[in-house]
Amino acid sequence: MIYFDSDYMAGAHPQVMQALVESNLEQTTGYGSDAYTAQAAALIRQACDAPQARVHFLVGGTQTNATVIDGLLARHQGVLAAESAHINVHESGAIEASGHKVLTLPQHEGKVKADEVKAYIDEFYRDDSYEHMVAPGMLYISFPTEYGTLYSLQELSDLSQVCHEADIPLYVDGARLGYGLAASDVSLPDLARLCDVFYIGGTKMGALFGEAVVINNDKLLKHFFPLIKQHGALLAKGRLLGVQFKALFSKGLYEEIGREAVAKALRLKAAFVEKGYQVEVDSPTNQQFFRLPNSLIDRLKQEASFEYWGPRGQQESVVRFVTSWATSDEDIDQLIALL
Amino acid sequence: MIYFDSDYMAGAHPQVMQALVESNLEQTTGYGSDAYTAQAAALIRQACDAPQARVHFLVGGTQTNATVIDGLLARHQGVLAAESAHINVHESGAIEASGHKVLTLPQHEGKVKADEVKAYIDEFYRDDSYEHMVAPGMLYISFPTEYGTLYSLQELSDLSQVCHEADIPLYVDGARLGYGLAASDVSLPDLARLCDVFYIGGTKMGALFGEAVVINNDKLLKHFFPLIKQHGALLAKGRLLGVQFKALFSKGLYEEIGREAVAKALRLKAAFVEKGYQVEVDSPTNQQFFRLPNSLIDRLKQEASFEYWGPRGQQESVVRFVTSWATSDEDIDQLIALL
Amino acid sequence: MIYFDSDYMAGAHPQVMQALVESNLEQTTGYGSDAYTAQAAALIRQACDAPQARVHFLVGGTQTNATVIDGLLARHQGVLAAESAHINVHESGAIEASGHKVLTLPQHEGKVKADEVKAYIDEFYRDDSYEHMVAPGMLYISFPTEYGTLYSLQELSDLSQVCHEADIPLYVDGARLGYGLAASDVSLPDLARLCDVFYIGGTKMGALFGEAVVINNDKLLKHFFPLIKQHGALLAKGRLLGVQFKALFSKGLYEEIGREAVAKALRLKAAFVEKGYQVEVDSPTNQQFFRLPNSLIDRLKQEASFEYWGPRGQQESVVRFVTSWATSDEDIDQLIALL
Amino acid sequence: MIYFDSDYMAGAHPQVMQALVESNLEQTTGYGSDAYTAQAAALIRQACDAPQARVHFLVGGTQTNATVIDGLLARHQGVLAAESAHINVHESGAIEASGHKVLTLPQHEGKVKADEVKAYIDEFYRDDSYEHMVAPGMLYISFPTEYGTLYSLQELSDLSQVCHEADIPLYVDGARLGYGLAASDVSLPDLARLCDVFYIGGTKMGALFGEAVVINNDKLLKHFFPLIKQHGALLAKGRLLGVQFKALFSKGLYEEIGREAVAKALRLKAAFVEKGYQVEVDSPTNQQFFRLPNSLIDRLKQEASFEYWGPRGQQESVVRFVTSWATSDEDIDQLIALL
Repeated sequence: MIYFDSDYMAGAHPQVMQALVESNLEQTTGYGSDAYTAQAAALIRQACDAPQARVHFLVGGTQTNATVIDGLLARHQGVLAAESAHINVHESGAIEASGHKVLTLPQHEGKVKADEVKAYIDEFYRDDSYEHMVAPGMLYISFPTEYGTLYSLQELSDLSQVCHEADIPLYVDGARLGYGLAASDVSLPDLARLCDVFYIGGTKMGALFGEAVVINNDKLLKHFFPLIKQHGALLAKGRLLGVQFKALFSKGLYEEIGREAVAKALRLKAAFVEKGYQVEVDSPTNQQFFRLPNSLIDRLKQEASFEYWGPRGQQESVVRFVTSWATSDEDIDQLIALL
Repeated sequence: MIYFDSDYMAGAHPQVMQALVESNLEQTTGYGSDAYTAQAAALIRQACDAPQARVHFLVGGTQTNATVIDGLLARHQGVLAAESAHINVHESGAIEASGHKVLTLPQHEGKVKADEVKAYIDEFYRDDSYEHMVAPGMLYISFPTEYGTLYSLQELSDLSQVCHEADIPLYVDGARLGYGLAASDVSLPDLARLCDVFYIGGTKMGALFGEAVVINNDKLLKHFFPLIKQHGALLAKGRLLGVQFKALFSKGLYEEIGREAVAKALRLKAAFVEKGYQVEVDSPTNQQFFRLPNSLIDRLKQEASFEYWGPRGQQESVVRFVTSWATSDEDIDQLIALL
Repeated sequence: MIYFDSDYMAGAHPQVMQALVESNLEQTTGYGSDAYTAQAAALIRQACDAPQARVHFLVGGTQTNATVIDGLLARHQGVLAAESAHINVHESGAIEASGHKVLTLPQHEGKVKADEVKAYIDEFYRDDSYEHMVAPGMLYISFPTEYGTLYSLQELSDLSQVCHEADIPLYVDGARLGYGLAASDVSLPDLARLCDVFYIGGTKMGALFGEAVVINNDKLLKHFFPLIKQHGALLAKGRLLGVQFKALFSKGLYEEIGREAVAKALRLKAAFVEKGYQVEVDSPTNQQFFRLPNSLIDRLKQEASFEYWGPRGQQESVVRFVTSWATSDEDIDQLIALL
Repeated sequence: MIYFDSDYMAGAHPQVMQALVESNLEQTTGYGSDAYTAQAAALIRQACDAPQARVHFLVGGTQTNATVIDGLLARHQGVLAAESAHINVHESGAIEASGHKVLTLPQHEGKVKADEVKAYIDEFYRDDSYEHMVAPGMLYISFPTEYGTLYSLQELSDLSQVCHEADIPLYVDGARLGYGLAASDVSLPDLARLCDVFYIGGTKMGALFGEAVVINNDKLLKHFFPLIKQHGALLAKGRLLGVQFKALFSKGLYEEIGREAVAKALRLKAAFVEKGYQVEVDSPTNQQFFRLPNSLIDRLKQEASFEYWGPRGQQESVVRFVTSWATSDEDIDQLIALL
């Protein structure tokens, strides 16, 4: 069986695992107060060209979103997000469980548009009853989105401008950030410059687990540590996060993982297109969505594992194929051979 | 430097790490739906002699407590706990953040007494205003407690009886459970029989991270999976928890880790006592509390790392020494030589 | 100036006020434990033909919705509601503030459709990831809706059936219930029979304030009193609610208030239609929505007060006129004369 | 039967009721945007000698406490309060339900001591683990306390100073404020000067219901209106609160109600003392606590209604007698005659 279900199906990238093994018997203080964590944070600040940024390491994506959003919003505020946003659909209500409404915007292949964000905010404050409504208190976007799509640097700049004119923070969920950086004109320093807070995904990028939150606005999240603890997101053996992110941000590993997985995904995409199959979303990253005949899907399932996204009429369905560092060239060859 | 600060200062026990390394490149489905997780759960059910129990794996202690307690309590209820309980003191208000009050009971070396639990509940319902107050909806205890002390089987049975007569669940925080089992007449089957829910700590018992929640009451926590997700406690690469607990519950490793660390702690204790130093709390487990002259503390700190708990008058202070699987006989010898 | 802004612009109906004045100097116990409250509850049970129903009196609509919904939902569940629902738009996030997501359904002139409710629930449980999503835990509808429209008895029966087949409660927000009962084939006994919980609005129906929650399912909201207190919805001088609802449910007053206000609203509607103006929503109750030329709106505003709902192109806008017990025939005459 | 159970057993003071009756048929806009509310706020600002203060009117005490405290605290903070504080004991966990821990201080006849507040805060920040604990984010006190006792102007100044040095707000629950003002050297301008936020109780001071929140710190509670709505504390017919507080703050009515009820309470106290009965708490306000023989209690209960607070040994118990504007001189005479 060859696996394309997701990018969290294997353990850690061998270099990351190696770092964990090598440091395993060391004893360090807990909760991220160790030297590995400090080194990882320094490497990330450097990669982001953001010497003042604060960097915190959490375990997983949903908990990171819940902790950051809870820390950014006042009680009367909600978070603006695409209706397809992970926080709106697939986090079991974690945002609402900490008391905040997700205010949905139309999604365009998973993306929101700057003018629609602006219109939402403008209309909100024009409504006579706005004090009876949930105020837009921040903007959440994902990069890449849940559909693998990306904001261009111009689009990201426009969103940043709209947010800052409205005096609300811009937060970027980078669960698959490395795949996005590999396929776009947006760099880590761009993100650090344009966003107030973002996170650099580790779980889906070669770590066993872990997400690095970068806060590049000194007015926000001033008391983030106790919030991490309160949200159950503080790892006792915090150095495990430091060790892993240090490995990911050494010797260009993070970029390499993103670049290679994207190349494999694009090879897959090209093969499907060449065979005449329809791309459902034109994704430039490691998630690819195809509309396939149900008969082909049934046949592929005999030898490959991938995600079913839903029917399109009686004869076809949309499926998702995802690559990662654990996807080999042979996996791709083998899949293509099945088409 | 020799380390006695806590039991989460090293990585994983070598056998656990080995299991992680061996399975690292395998691809499995996520969120605990893999075979390792199923095998670990089966081993735990067997060790607990509880074939019907449901077993879930979460990442850390605070998130486990918050998730379980949130799932057990109705909105008008609070959780009874010793005033020294971890949930009351050192979880940054995670219980309250999910809407519940911690109702405190007097602590006796970290323990609560069955008759005081019963008296609290009886007095609550005798109060004319009880519907204006937070109802006791469950009992939380830790085993071992935050002071390293243990409930005897009789004490645990008494607490169980009080809870069941009051129709409230008994929940045991077993962050250091293995050290407790090694030093008491209470077994895993006893816990499964007497408690409604308990967790078997991994983080402090040789895992990189991870806690196994055992639910042995089919009326409770019926929808626990989405709660885990909502609380940010669901690990994407869930099999990491399965792999680790499978290793811990194979070949008697969990018992061995507990037994050896306790033996080392007791050797340490005996040495302090022999030298004439006062034991602050008479702990039979891997946490030891001594009242030492400040001058000795200053001297020990040159070569050993341990926790400061607070002053006792002008000349003395209480300090904590903790052993784990990572504590070697040489560490103990070296510390004793310093006394 | 004549007022058509809303149905909460005057104080209490004179008979209600008279009851408050007459009982003012009496001393009774608090929190609804008095005889007036018991009498009002008995009158409501009788009017609902629901001798087993529990009746609780709260102060206002938003707090009633928040308290009931919080009590009905488990932590992993959300509340299904039309996207135009008051709880989704105009309650400042009160539902989310107590931890629950509002799961939105398409609205059809403010109403939801039984088959769309059923489809939502069916699709939810067909989704492989449903345990990562917020489960539909109850259905909220308003009667009349925010647009003044009504469910027929058949529509309500269909919704009830869908809910009960899915084993989730049906809750009806009756802030303006009396106006709905006056204009439909649905009776109080129908509501009691088809819904699990509903509330009979007082604030907009002639009381100074107050809403009567009717619980006709003995498995639900078993500990409702402490929840009322916890939500800040418990009135110290609870008998004020009893006195008012006793007056409303004596001598047919509640029906009379509904009937007369609806008759006035329909006279207004007929006059607008006769003059050739367009009805925006075909409402049979005390809220009427017209699409009027902006020039007419400006002219009317000189002498009448009413709500602006939004533009329709450059020349026209939608406005709302609301009648109540405080609307006199002369008010209607005077408005019609202005057309 | 003569009633001394509490100060919320009758309706409104006749002058307050008169104002409600006279304004009853007027139509005004809702939610406190009317002229009565503006006038009441102006009168309160004037009485407080605080021209910049913002004044908001809510319905009841528990909801006021929950709304203010939720607005003042950041997510990682809790509220310091005496362990006997109403928010800690008798609000069904409303503070925790909005996510915050009540951090308890020892109570001294219901009061907290400035040096103990200071010590708590100092020790908190000296604890190495303080970021794992709930930070003290504000101080709640009640004036009078739940035991009828009062802070002197000096004590209040000391608390204010401790809070401001620690940069946390001081909030005063004035559910029975008028009785406190009548019996102490503290004035409304003192409260406005020394506290950041306080509320002037109406429910227990002659209103049907209502509490006036005074915010005299322009950095705090900047978005209070939507929080009021979110907490279900916004009255649709908001002018009812304005009308009542306008009446209370006209012609010295609020002071008069406080003064007269306290005078009656002190007459009662003197009579008990003269008869040789023991005062349990030396209260200078309208709540009086006596330790009486159970036989006397049984006898009094035949003709008077009052609250039972708990046993003192086998033969005696503590009971509470409360006076209000509704207590007549004849009520007092009659009770004294029974002794």
